[in-house]
Amino acid sequence: MTILLDMKGWDPHPWIAAIKRADPERQVVTAVAQENASAIRYAWVWRPRTGILSNLPNLELIVNLGAGVDALLADATIPTHVPIVRALDPNITMRMTEWIVLQVLYHHRHIPAYLEQQRQRIWRALPQPAASAVTVGILGCGALGTSAGVALRHVGFEVIGWSRTAKEETRFKVFAGGDCLPSFLGQTDILVCLLPLTPETRGVLSYGLFRQLKRGGALAGPVLVNAGRGAQQIDADILRALDDGTLWAASLDVFDPEPLALTSQLWAHPRAFVTPHIAADSEPEAMSGYVIKQIRRHEQGLPLDMTVDRGRGY
Amino acid sequence: MTILLDMKGWDPHPWIAAIKRADPERQVVTAVAQENASAIRYAWVWRPRTGILSNLPNLELIVNLGAGVDALLADATIPTHVPIVRALDPNITMRMTEWIVLQVLYHHRHIPAYLEQQRQRIWRALPQPAASAVTVGILGCGALGTSAGVALRHVGFEVIGWSRTAKEETRFKVFAGGDCLPSFLGQTDILVCLLPLTPETRGVLSYGLFRQLKRGGALAGPVLVNAGRGAQQIDADILRALDDGTLWAASLDVFDPEPLALTSQLWAHPRAFVTPHIAADSEPEAMSGYVIKQIRRHEQGLPLDMTVDRGRGY
Repeated sequence: MTILLDMKGWDPHPWIAAIKRADPERQVVTAVAQENASAIRYAWVWRPRTGILSNLPNLELIVNLGAGVDALLADATIPTHVPIVRALDPNITMRMTEWIVLQVLYHHRHIPAYLEQQRQRIWRALPQPAASAVTVGILGCGALGTSAGVALRHVGFEVIGWSRTAKEETRFKVFAGGDCLPSFLGQTDILVCLLPLTPETRGVLSYGLFRQLKRGGALAGPVLVNAGRGAQQIDADILRALDDGTLWAASLDVFDPEPLALTSQLWAHPRAFVTPHIAADSEPEAMSGYVIKQIRRHEQGLPLDMTVDRGRGY
Repeated sequence: MTILLDMKGWDPHPWIAAIKRADPERQVVTAVAQENASAIRYAWVWRPRTGILSNLPNLELIVNLGAGVDALLADATIPTHVPIVRALDPNITMRMTEWIVLQVLYHHRHIPAYLEQQRQRIWRALPQPAASAVTVGILGCGALGTSAGVALRHVGFEVIGWSRTAKEETRFKVFAGGDCLPSFLGQTDILVCLLPLTPETRGVLSYGLFRQLKRGGALAGPVLVNAGRGAQQIDADILRALDDGTLWAASLDVFDPEPLALTSQLWAHPRAFVTPHIAADSEPEAMSGYVIKQIRRHEQGLPLDMTVDRGRGY
């Protein structure tokens, strides 16, 4: 019942300690050797080393420590018969909700302009629509998008969503399928992207899409908030759209590649807010408690939350 | 049934147009003359000219267009037998909720530091507690404070409140009365002030109060968010507290006097965010609809929302 932990760019020690607190009997290893390979039943991974999961005869479950499994599915060495679950604990979901609500309000309430006025000691109120006059459109209505949408409604925004497949969602209207995308975009003042990265969503945040957003709304122009994946956005299109007014402003937390290149013009654009992929980081304590619960459900033969469908890619 | 409109610093024309849309038959005047004084039954005011309400023999109701009646009650020429109502429509309440949620998240999610990192093209994640590890304490739990508290809970924060008198509030804990203030402050990471300005609350945001806020919490230190009234805060105490670490950061929308003096050190303090009293401006359309409804209730002999108690001062 050993766990193999392999998380690119993360210090494993807080994770091992947190797993031990959640389940003191559980063995945790961070490397595969001849003597432990057959004991490993569970892999907790984030962008694991290529090939590390390929020779584990008793591997039962792969836990992806985050919402996006695009990196995992791109690795052809991963055995296809082992189920993958996305670990998306309430702690991550709420962190993403915090970030989305903050970025939406940041642009809606003119924070960049007020910071500049403060720097110049200017006392001047700017025209301000109410949140109820602004529609936030959430592209991707899984657990993250739904939580953000509900919180945005409580702050007063109109909220609509778009999803690849139909959703049972009563708290805001969700458009389903590609045919509905133009109507969804045409009603959206602030576009929030929380899509998974799949072949279909690669490069979806393009100039052509930005042009379909609502014009003449309550804000100075459409706003883009991307907390999905960097490969979904075309940086040159964002810059062009910001410069010609197709977009009024953008908040970007994800890039391709990461870190964002030092030479990128996004860093210095006055209406782009760049953050270093921090919208919703996993926290060892909350995440470990959640994943250990999932493993126990698996050991009791119960169904798991958020099993990945390799065919659709998320 | 004429309305007298007198709003310091506001253009009356959008208001007159909005009142006419809400109630086309209603007469609106902006000055008192011998021939109209006896027709005036209602005064819609914001910091009215001293004496303008003193010679209106048939005045039945004074409507204060905003939450704070401190300026109105300080004017001794206003007849004491005429009831005053505070016009606090859902539009204003939600605008204040937007602003409070934004300012709380702004500090919680390190926006000033990330903006500075962007300026320097630094890609670095900062330590980030979850909102659930942070307690927002709302000083003043009337309509505005309650709405903000509920929205902050939906974003994930722990929320507590303090009120002068006991409240029936089930969505978060409200401490009541002066004896409870130290326990309330001792549990508060981010203090939000939405108190009315009364003799008791003048200067309440002092160094002595800041020292009672929670130390050693999940944030780098306590945060102050003031959207009440400028006269509640002692600017020199805020600066001292920011400089010696008693406060980590502050967002201030109100000052005494306003505009904030050009010489104030608050403008340039790196951890003070100064905005020009824009947290929740009245909107003629939404407000006029609301107030006309209140006037109709009055004309039908029904009780009014938010009648001011001159004795307690709000």
